[in-house]
Amino acid sequence: MSSTYGENLKLSIFGQSHGGGIGMTLDGIPAGLPVDTEKLQSFLNRRAPGQNDWSTPRAEEDRPEFLSGLLDGYTCGAPIAAVIYNKNTRSGDYANLKDCPRPGHADYTAEIKYGGFQDAAGGGHFSGRLTAPLCIAGGLCKQWLEELDIHVGAHIYAIGGIPDTPFDPLMPQLGKIGTVFPVLSEAAGAAMRQRISATRAEGDSVGGVIECAVTGLPAGIGEPMFGGVESRISAIVYGIPAVKGVEFGSGFQAAALRGSVNNDAYLVENGRIRTQTNNCGGILGGITNGMPLIFRAAFKPTPSISRPQQSVSISRMEQTELIVRGRHDPCIVPRAVPVVESAAAIAIFDLILGNTQSNRRKQ
Amino acid sequence: MSSTYGENLKLSIFGQSHGGGIGMTLDGIPAGLPVDTEKLQSFLNRRAPGQNDWSTPRAEEDRPEFLSGLLDGYTCGAPIAAVIYNKNTRSGDYANLKDCPRPGHADYTAEIKYGGFQDAAGGGHFSGRLTAPLCIAGGLCKQWLEELDIHVGAHIYAIGGIPDTPFDPLMPQLGKIGTVFPVLSEAAGAAMRQRISATRAEGDSVGGVIECAVTGLPAGIGEPMFGGVESRISAIVYGIPAVKGVEFGSGFQAAALRGSVNNDAYLVENGRIRTQTNNCGGILGGITNGMPLIFRAAFKPTPSISRPQQSVSISRMEQTELIVRGRHDPCIVPRAVPVVESAAAIAIFDLILGNTQSNRRKQ
Amino acid sequence: MSSTYGENLKLSIFGQSHGGGIGMTLDGIPAGLPVDTEKLQSFLNRRAPGQNDWSTPRAEEDRPEFLSGLLDGYTCGAPIAAVIYNKNTRSGDYANLKDCPRPGHADYTAEIKYGGFQDAAGGGHFSGRLTAPLCIAGGLCKQWLEELDIHVGAHIYAIGGIPDTPFDPLMPQLGKIGTVFPVLSEAAGAAMRQRISATRAEGDSVGGVIECAVTGLPAGIGEPMFGGVESRISAIVYGIPAVKGVEFGSGFQAAALRGSVNNDAYLVENGRIRTQTNNCGGILGGITNGMPLIFRAAFKPTPSISRPQQSVSISRMEQTELIVRGRHDPCIVPRAVPVVESAAAIAIFDLILGNTQSNRRKQ
Amino acid sequence: MSSTYGENLKLSIFGQSHGGGIGMTLDGIPAGLPVDTEKLQSFLNRRAPGQNDWSTPRAEEDRPEFLSGLLDGYTCGAPIAAVIYNKNTRSGDYANLKDCPRPGHADYTAEIKYGGFQDAAGGGHFSGRLTAPLCIAGGLCKQWLEELDIHVGAHIYAIGGIPDTPFDPLMPQLGKIGTVFPVLSEAAGAAMRQRISATRAEGDSVGGVIECAVTGLPAGIGEPMFGGVESRISAIVYGIPAVKGVEFGSGFQAAALRGSVNNDAYLVENGRIRTQTNNCGGILGGITNGMPLIFRAAFKPTPSISRPQQSVSISRMEQTELIVRGRHDPCIVPRAVPVVESAAAIAIFDLILGNTQSNRRKQ
Repeated sequence: MSSTYGENLKLSIFGQSHGGGIGMTLDGIPAGLPVDTEKLQSFLNRRAPGQNDWSTPRAEEDRPEFLSGLLDGYTCGAPIAAVIYNKNTRSGDYANLKDCPRPGHADYTAEIKYGGFQDAAGGGHFSGRLTAPLCIAGGLCKQWLEELDIHVGAHIYAIGGIPDTPFDPLMPQLGKIGTVFPVLSEAAGAAMRQRISATRAEGDSVGGVIECAVTGLPAGIGEPMFGGVESRISAIVYGIPAVKGVEFGSGFQAAALRGSVNNDAYLVENGRIRTQTNNCGGILGGITNGMPLIFRAAFKPTPSISRPQQSVSISRMEQTELIVRGRHDPCIVPRAVPVVESAAAIAIFDLILGNTQSNRRKQ
Repeated sequence: MSSTYGENLKLSIFGQSHGGGIGMTLDGIPAGLPVDTEKLQSFLNRRAPGQNDWSTPRAEEDRPEFLSGLLDGYTCGAPIAAVIYNKNTRSGDYANLKDCPRPGHADYTAEIKYGGFQDAAGGGHFSGRLTAPLCIAGGLCKQWLEELDIHVGAHIYAIGGIPDTPFDPLMPQLGKIGTVFPVLSEAAGAAMRQRISATRAEGDSVGGVIECAVTGLPAGIGEPMFGGVESRISAIVYGIPAVKGVEFGSGFQAAALRGSVNNDAYLVENGRIRTQTNNCGGILGGITNGMPLIFRAAFKPTPSISRPQQSVSISRMEQTELIVRGRHDPCIVPRAVPVVESAAAIAIFDLILGNTQSNRRKQ
Repeated sequence: MSSTYGENLKLSIFGQSHGGGIGMTLDGIPAGLPVDTEKLQSFLNRRAPGQNDWSTPRAEEDRPEFLSGLLDGYTCGAPIAAVIYNKNTRSGDYANLKDCPRPGHADYTAEIKYGGFQDAAGGGHFSGRLTAPLCIAGGLCKQWLEELDIHVGAHIYAIGGIPDTPFDPLMPQLGKIGTVFPVLSEAAGAAMRQRISATRAEGDSVGGVIECAVTGLPAGIGEPMFGGVESRISAIVYGIPAVKGVEFGSGFQAAALRGSVNNDAYLVENGRIRTQTNNCGGILGGITNGMPLIFRAAFKPTPSISRPQQSVSISRMEQTELIVRGRHDPCIVPRAVPVVESAAAIAIFDLILGNTQSNRRKQ
Repeated sequence: MSSTYGENLKLSIFGQSHGGGIGMTLDGIPAGLPVDTEKLQSFLNRRAPGQNDWSTPRAEEDRPEFLSGLLDGYTCGAPIAAVIYNKNTRSGDYANLKDCPRPGHADYTAEIKYGGFQDAAGGGHFSGRLTAPLCIAGGLCKQWLEELDIHVGAHIYAIGGIPDTPFDPLMPQLGKIGTVFPVLSEAAGAAMRQRISATRAEGDSVGGVIECAVTGLPAGIGEPMFGGVESRISAIVYGIPAVKGVEFGSGFQAAALRGSVNNDAYLVENGRIRTQTNNCGGILGGITNGMPLIFRAAFKPTPSISRPQQSVSISRMEQTELIVRGRHDPCIVPRAVPVVESAAAIAIFDLILGNTQSNRRKQ
């Protein structure tokens, strides 16, 4: 199913960029879990547009209204439903995109799939704006994971090839991530912002990579084969628009290594088993091993650029030049950091809800 | 759920490496689809062990027995069930691995999750041997896709850093892939085989990358968000043991590019719309655009190596040196090629079965 | 999952009786299906409260606001989301029910399951009010089925033991059902209304049975075993509060019959195969046979009655007398008729979307 | 999906009556659950054919071979797979049924759905024989429920209108059910057996009702709406061939009652809350209330009777007389008793695995 995720919790996301509202329902959550809506709003603000010079100037508050599922600061057992009403819509900007699709965007595939009935304004259901409800669900799951001492954090790993300091895979520096621009190295962050500004000035866009870590995970979370942590996380992360790659631990680098180098040797430390390295990113056989979970997601550059591009008129079946109007981020990576955290938090909380770990021990 | 895949078809894989048998059930397949069991056997033989010097000498025929679902060469509407009985098992080799887990393998996480009740012999349910039933399902789906003129093929993209010629993303050379050693460049293949032999001689292993292409896909397959082609393919590909990265189209490379370079411009050719480049790997917004689907999966090196490794005794909670016995591939990548094809074929056929493409056209 | 239904479409219902709003999301619907919102409103009005002397005087308009999924009178491919905002709430009436549960209601089981965190006002998520969003989804599915010449209709089969004329199972009289009070026999309807009024006057309530028919269904809809029409319909009908029995065709009567009487003999009529009787209710082996689908749902009497009842104080663990205040229907059966139609329409449309019927014919 | 059941566990049933074998896979079961295979065999023997004069003389041992999932008497975490190989097949008996369908059987609907590709021998995948693998899964779940002090039992409630003593809904007499012929009243059992013999002698068949109880269930199991106990149980019970009705507690009788009679008053007894009556069958709002769960399933008479019946030739499109050969039960109800128990046990164990009951308590 398209916009539904979860084996144990059931997340359903709805809305179009310029429709009446966007939102989500989240079913299967136990009653009695605390919800701090101010903290949630702070989290959502990290994703919200219009705050600075590296994102779209479209101003939306992204303040969710909860229609059900919460009572007196706790989940009440009913499905949680939240809506963000769309206010600042300018759908006239998109009038030409149904016939003349933006290269790299879903305009063309939506036109084919939906036979012309889709809501093309602002990208419709394919808009990056749909990551706001994902962040509502993700922000809630993050809070509930924190109750279990499980922490999810992400930073910009690279933008346009400019790298940040990577996470220490044995002890990811979650507390050292910048709040305004989420990097570990201030210098790297400054270089990235400069690159974004330069790119914007040229009417272009640039991609990047986000690295995410989950700490405090006990060993034994995840299921074999298609229920593995990698399967579940990648399935939701690829639901974020513009993601074209996902890797865990040393990922694609591991493919060039020898087993004797890539294998993470075990050791006993303070009465606990751990590994000396963490090339596996905290997952073996799809199941957590108690080390930090580490993964990276590659974002392609925003397809909506103001430079003239070559497209086609679908109705006339002929080539044409396209000028994209409207407000677009020259780089969505900074705003996507909480979105990746959300995806990870939802996937992990879902796995924990359905955890089949044995509570017995063979003698 | 762990070993179950599919939204429309339902694939369920069972078995342990050294148990009575391994197999699969495949439900939700329409009746009347032809099945060529000889062709299926040829496909399975590409994955079977013991054939050559770059794989484990364990000799298993991997000949599935169909218990239900087929009649007179066609699907009959009942769930398809197939079993491969295990014959050549030597479980004594694995006696020590429950207490002393192999680095990089699922031994440790299985021990924690299953409380000592798991079947550790041969890796149990986590064995690469479980990809044989995946190939039964995949080989069937490949045949059914071919009926629709959709073709799935893969080659070794790299082993230990040695690259093959990549696919032409506009016209993947499916017909040019070597049959014994699946590469496009014979020279690259020779160098890879040499690397594998050298690695084996040193008691080590090596990883690699597999590139897969699907041609003939119409535009409009896939659903938005979590039902996108990337989500569905990555969810099943990560179910293959040792996969640590999956990327589509230009993937992680796209993250370093500008939009003006990465966007695939549209053109009209012979009355059909296509793109000039294929950086998106045939997928926009999770939905196929009619261009070839291209993705790559990174395989870590086989964790089971014969060199001494540092591990721990779980019962005594102390460090110890581990010598892994048993028969293991120094590089699983060659045998994994049909497995990746299988995963892709299953995911695509599942999406086609549940396709919600509109059969109307707005006036 | 609790409030989620569907194998191919995904319906998710949210809300509490006295919360901010109730609603639904409906995912997996193809684009381009027409939606007549006025016709939908007429359908919803059949369920709405406060219209007459046999239902609760709570006045709610039950006018859904569509937040996404519709554009210019057609589905647009995005998930459909609709909200009915709650206006006329009087939650003070329910203050005592968390500690002192109503017999026959979900008050007690909700208290145990949700540990006191549930929203008890108006029955919270267990309120009959939650059937309004079910009717939004059902009303839409009914319209889409009508496009396929499939018609869903229901009538009051009995109230308090007073029977209506039953459907002719070979040709259900869908066009003869009363619009204000949905019965086939006006006399029976009058007797039922009198019974309801008398029951209300005594501070009591009464149950009944609803019979539903679906005509125009082609043969071959439904899947074997747990995907059969009976399984799928009963799974959703039992989601309607107060339903305690569901039967198909001659149902429980069939259990007392002989095979020679219950079997529906085949005949050829006007070049089509049909049956002489319809004891199977149009379903054999879980699959439609082309005859009208017939089922009945038994509704227990409304548990909320104004007579004093014996209950307990959960906090004090002692028995106590309970006086239920608030507004309640003395008989929910009349208002439940469109709800049963909705459940049937959703189940059938879901099955049609995922239909695996072979499009080939063995020679 | 057709032959797949479960939200948390995943049961997949495969096989055709006269194919290579029938069986099941059961995924999502925690490791370390004990399995007594002898006890399981005793349970399966209750369903097995050929034992007495009221069932088909087809002799099948119904002895499952476990291919995976069990080790040393415990579940090992891998999916459980079991096969029963078919031995005593006589498919020649069924040669004419593809063209000339048996009234009341799935022959016709299978022919339409599967386009002639179905395996018609012995009813193929629609055979009552497919309840054997259901009983493997059910027998396992029963054992695991017993570990939790939850007991599932059923008896013949009626055959051909002859009633057994019903269960005491407050304290079902699970220990008093006959072992050879599962009734509470020996006299009723004798009358039923006589009715079956007489019916068989006339070349006819007869239906009946099975009543099932589950004791020891804690309050709080089940989810709201479509995840309610009634929904989940009916969805699996309707997967049993010949079931045409399912009701809970007082079921269809409740529809004729007043609320003041049907409501189950609460009382405190020995420091625990319970109800004075159990008209709700242990379920309120879809959630268990701690009282015994009671439901009944109506079975239509076996459609395969030896009397001549009126059918049609599909190929010639003309009416014809049908004489059914082969071995058939004149009444399947006695053998279906463990099948109904199995369905209940699977549904309940599935709900327990995914239970979202809050482990907190609001102050």
